Amino acid sequence: MENGSEKWGFQGKQEMNAAAAITVRGVLNMLMGNLNEDDSRPVIPLGHGDPSHFPSFRTSPAAEDAIVDALRSAKYNCYAPTVGILPARRAIVDYLNRDLPYKLSPDDVFLTSGCTQAIEVAFAVLSRPGANILLPRPGFPFYEASAAYNCFEVRHFDLLPEKGWEVDIDAVETLADENTVAMVIINPGNPCGNVFSYEHLKKVAETARKLGILVIADEVYDNLAFGSTKYVPMRMFASTVPVLTLGSISKKWIVPGWRLGWLVTSDPNGILHKYGIIESITGFLNISSDPATFIQGAIPQIIENTKEDFFSKIICILREAADISYNRIEEIPCITCPKKPEGSMFVMVKLNLSMLEDVNDDMEFCLKLAKEESVIILPGVAVGSKNWLRITFAIEPSSLEEGLARLKAFCQRHAKKQ
Amino acid sequence: MENGSEKWGFQGKQEMNAAAAITVRGVLNMLMGNLNEDDSRPVIPLGHGDPSHFPSFRTSPAAEDAIVDALRSAKYNCYAPTVGILPARRAIVDYLNRDLPYKLSPDDVFLTSGCTQAIEVAFAVLSRPGANILLPRPGFPFYEASAAYNCFEVRHFDLLPEKGWEVDIDAVETLADENTVAMVIINPGNPCGNVFSYEHLKKVAETARKLGILVIADEVYDNLAFGSTKYVPMRMFASTVPVLTLGSISKKWIVPGWRLGWLVTSDPNGILHKYGIIESITGFLNISSDPATFIQGAIPQIIENTKEDFFSKIICILREAADISYNRIEEIPCITCPKKPEGSMFVMVKLNLSMLEDVNDDMEFCLKLAKEESVIILPGVAVGSKNWLRITFAIEPSSLEEGLARLKAFCQRHAKKQ
Ligand SMILES: Cc1ncc(COP(=O)(O)O)c(C=O)c1O
Ligand SMILES: Cc1ncc(COP(=O)(O)O)c(C=O)c1O
Repeated sequence: MENGSEKWGFQGKQEMNAAAAITVRGVLNMLMGNLNEDDSRPVIPLGHGDPSHFPSFRTSPAAEDAIVDALRSAKYNCYAPTVGILPARRAIVDYLNRDLPYKLSPDDVFLTSGCTQAIEVAFAVLSRPGANILLPRPGFPFYEASAAYNCFEVRHFDLLPEKGWEVDIDAVETLADENTVAMVIINPGNPCGNVFSYEHLKKVAETARKLGILVIADEVYDNLAFGSTKYVPMRMFASTVPVLTLGSISKKWIVPGWRLGWLVTSDPNGILHKYGIIESITGFLNISSDPATFIQGAIPQIIENTKEDFFSKIICILREAADISYNRIEEIPCITCPKKPEGSMFVMVKLNLSMLEDVNDDMEFCLKLAKEESVIILPGVAVGSKNWLRITFAIEPSSLEEGLARLKAFCQRHAKKQ
Repeated sequence: MENGSEKWGFQGKQEMNAAAAITVRGVLNMLMGNLNEDDSRPVIPLGHGDPSHFPSFRTSPAAEDAIVDALRSAKYNCYAPTVGILPARRAIVDYLNRDLPYKLSPDDVFLTSGCTQAIEVAFAVLSRPGANILLPRPGFPFYEASAAYNCFEVRHFDLLPEKGWEVDIDAVETLADENTVAMVIINPGNPCGNVFSYEHLKKVAETARKLGILVIADEVYDNLAFGSTKYVPMRMFASTVPVLTLGSISKKWIVPGWRLGWLVTSDPNGILHKYGIIESITGFLNISSDPATFIQGAIPQIIENTKEDFFSKIICILREAADISYNRIEEIPCITCPKKPEGSMFVMVKLNLSMLEDVNDDMEFCLKLAKEESVIILPGVAVGSKNWLRITFAIEPSSLEEGLARLKAFCQRHAKKQ
C-alpha cells in the first residue's frame, strides 16, 4: 500500500479557529477553569446570559404543555418546509404586528434555529468580497465571529456611555462608504442593558436611509424592558429603511435550549425583494438545518397560552435585580456604572484601575475574582470594551446579593491603600 | 433626506440561489405544482424520504416518552455546550461502539442539527480554495449544494448499476489529485438502495489511504438494511483511513423533524488531530446553531428504551415494500431495475424511453405522471442520473400498491404501439 509517508490531502482551517476564539463561551470557559476547587462556597455565575436553570426563571407551564401537545400529536415528526411551518409563522407575525403602522405577512417570517441562526443567515446573505458592516461596540461578539467567517469587514461604531449608550450617529456616517451593506443594533441592549428611545431609533433609520444601508435589529430581548424608556421595535421605521428583525423565544420565555428563532423582513416598499435579498434568504435556508418541527408546531400555543402573569413576574424580578445591582455597585468605589439598566439582563460597569493595587486589566480582575471569590463576571474585553465588566443580573435573587457582596469584598481587599 | 434615488448598498447572491436550486425539495415542489386538482384520488408520494406521517411508520412511544421526560425535568431549557451534552455523546458512542475492533470516546462525537448539519460541518471544515471532493453519482444532491456553497470543486465517481451499485474504484483513482480532500460514500445507499459489502468497503478504505484522502461515510440509514448483504459501518476501517461518520436519529427512529444528528471522527491513529481537523470542527460548531438541548437530553433514554420490536417491525415493512416494488416494476416493460434494494428507502430504476411514445426525458415523465396519476416520483436528473427514476417505497403499504398500479397504467397508456 502507498502513503507509507502518511501524506494526507486535508487540513484544518486557522480562520475558523480564529473566528470562534472571540466568543463569550470561550472566555467564560477560561474563567471557569480558574476557579479555586478548595472554595466550598457555590460559584456565582454573573457571566452568562442564561437564567433558565434558576427556579425563579423557570419557563411557563403553558409553554411546556404546548411542546408536549405538539409532540404527542405525531403531526410534527416530519421535515418542515424550508422557511418553517405556516401556523408558526402566522402566530409570530400576529405577535409582531401588534402596534405596527403597517402589517407584516407570514411570508415575511423565516424560522431559524434560535436568533443565532438568524444572524448566520443575515450575514451569509449580505456578505460579499470587499463589503463591510457596521457593528456596535461594546457588542455581542457572535457578530464579529460570524463576520470573520463570512469575510465581512467589520467597522465599529461606539455606543456612548455618557449618552445612555446611544449609537454614535456621527461615527456611523463617517464609517460608512459605498461598500457598507448594513448596520446592526441590539435593542434592548446586550451588553449595556439600555433601551433606545423612539426618537433615537428614528434618527438611526434616517441615517441608514441616507447611507443606503440596511438595519439589522437584534431584538432577542424584545419586551425584557423594565425602565422608563418604552421599548420600540425597529420595524416601526421600515418605511424609511428596510429592517431585518432577528429574534427568538430564548430570552422572553427563558428557553434558550429550545432553539427557535426568526428572521423577519420589514420592508413595505419592497426594496429587499427588488435587490434579491428575499430570494437569497430562502436559498441559504435551503442548504441549512431547521429548528425541530414539533417545536415549530408548538409556537402558536406557546404564544397564545402563556399568561401575562408569567411575563410580568419575569419583568418584576429583572427590575428588582437591576435596582439591586445598580445600588450595590454604587457602593464600590473602583467600579462605576454610567447608566442604570432598563432592559435585557446585563449592566456594563467601568473599572477604575488606578484605585486597585494588583490588578492590571479587566481580564486579570475577572481571573482573580473567579479564583478568590468563585464569582464569574465577563471581562469587557470580550465584548469590545477593555477595562469594563459585563455583569449579568438575571440569576436567582438571593445569589445575586451574595455575588455582589463578594465582588465588593474583592474590591476592598485589592483597593490601593490611601 | 438623501437617497431619493433609492440606491442601496446590499444585494442578493446568485451563487446561493444556484446552490439551493439543486435540492430534492425544489424538484418535488415543482412536481407538486403540476398536480391535477380535479383528480379526486389521493396523491401518492413516492418522491420524498420521509415516512413519518404514515401510521405504520409512527416512531416508538419510548422515544416520545424520552422527550417528554427530558422536557418536564426542566434541566434542559439551557444552552448546551458547543459539542453537545456529555450524556448524549456517551450514549451515541456506546451505540456506535458495538462490534468495533477499537473503542471510540465521547470526545469523538459532535452533536449536530440532523445529519444535514453534519454535512455542513464536514464541508465547511474541509473546503479550501482549489480543493476538490469526490462525490457519488447518483447521489444525494445536498452534497452538491453544500459543495457549491463552500466553493468546493466536485468530481463525480459513478456507482455502477451492473455491479450492484458498487463504487467505480478505478474512476476514484483517476479523478483524485493532490488537491483532493475526501470522498463521500452513502451506505446504505440513497438513492440506490444498495448496501456495500465488507470487502468493497475495505477496498474503498485502501484506495482512500493510497490517495491520502479522508472518507466521509454518510450512514444516516445505518441499520435500515434488510437484504442479504450485511451492513458494515465504514469506521470499521479507520485504522486504514480516517473516517468521518455522519448520522442521525431521523431515519432509524423515523423522526426527521427532531433534528438530532452527529458527526463522529474515527481515527485511532490520531491523523485528524494532527492535521487540525478536530480543532476546526469545534471552531465551526462554536459559530453554528445547536440541536435543541432537551432533545439532546432525551438521547440516552431514546437509545436505551426503544424496544428491538420497533426496529424489526420497520425492517419488516421495508423488506416487504422493497419486494413489492421490485416485483411490480418487473411487470412494467419500459422500466428496469438493475438491483433489488437491500437498504434505505429507495430504489433506482431506468427509463427505457424508446418504448414510450410522448415522453422525452425523466423530468417530462414525472411531470406527466403527477398530472395524470397524482403520483410523485423523483426524476433521476435530480440525483445525477438523467432518464432514471428514484422511487421511495417507505410509505403506507396499501398506498404503495396503489401508486405502483397507477405507475403501470401510466406506462401502458404511453407505450409505443408496436
Ligand atoms: C444580542 C444577542 N443576540 C442573539 C443571541 C442568541 O440568541 P439565541 O439563543 O436565540 O440563539 C444572544 C444570546 O445571548 C444575544 O445576547
Ligand atoms: C443520504 C442522506 N444524508 C443526509 C440526510 C439528511 O438527514 P437528516 O434528516 O438527519 O438531516 C438525508 C435525508 O434524506 C439523506 O438521504
